Amino acid sequence: MNSKDEVQIENLDFSRLNGLVTVVVQDIRTKEVLMVAFANKEAIKKTIEEGVAYFWSRSRNRLWMKGESSGNIQRVERILVDCDADAVIYLVTPMGPACHTGRMSCFYRTLKP
Amino acid sequence: MNSKDEVQIENLDFSRLNGLVTVVVQDIRTKEVLMVAFANKEAIKKTIEEGVAYFWSRSRNRLWMKGESSGNIQRVERILVDCDADAVIYLVTPMGPACHTGRMSCFYRTLKP
Repeated sequence: MNSKDEVQIENLDFSRLNGLVTVVVQDIRTKEVLMVAFANKEAIKKTIEEGVAYFWSRSRNRLWMKGESSGNIQRVERILVDCDADAVIYLVTPMGPACHTGRMSCFYRTLKP
Repeated sequence: MNSKDEVQIENLDFSRLNGLVTVVVQDIRTKEVLMVAFANKEAIKKTIEEGVAYFWSRSRNRLWMKGESSGNIQRVERILVDCDADAVIYLVTPMGPACHTGRMSCFYRTLKP
């Protein structure tokens, strides 16, 4: 990958979602999508600095580290950025289930056709 | 998968994002995440009815079918729903690149560590 395919945090577009970008969390090994959440600039910075997934909780209106209470942290191996720079993928090694129900992924249901 | 793991469209939670749910589009075969967009209830309905990906464009403020101008439609094989019911995954067979740049996925860049 050459340097023009690298994006700086300053180039992320937080304007589309009131200071947030959409975050898709994907298992780097199985490629399973584990959860979707949102991050502000601080959450992205903390994620880079500490190498574990941070988000912005819109319901609790605060920064949260995934696993801060459950212990199921997500080690972030790499962050991908989309063409609009308003969505990212955290490619993670999960230390446990992503879902509060105990399932590895929050996407365990299907929509009835 | 038993019936309690099936969600009706009426049970989706459109309230968290002003009438929208987040949509992750994932290639059903390669498991690559192709793009992230948003859908309102009508977009979800049209997706189920026609079997191709529909979204709500927040910039153009209208319903759009992926590929309506490019021809790169996405055949939606299955829709997964997360535990909060405010995000879904369209599992698709893409008929062409997802990205306007011609790349299969919009997530072709990495965030500089």
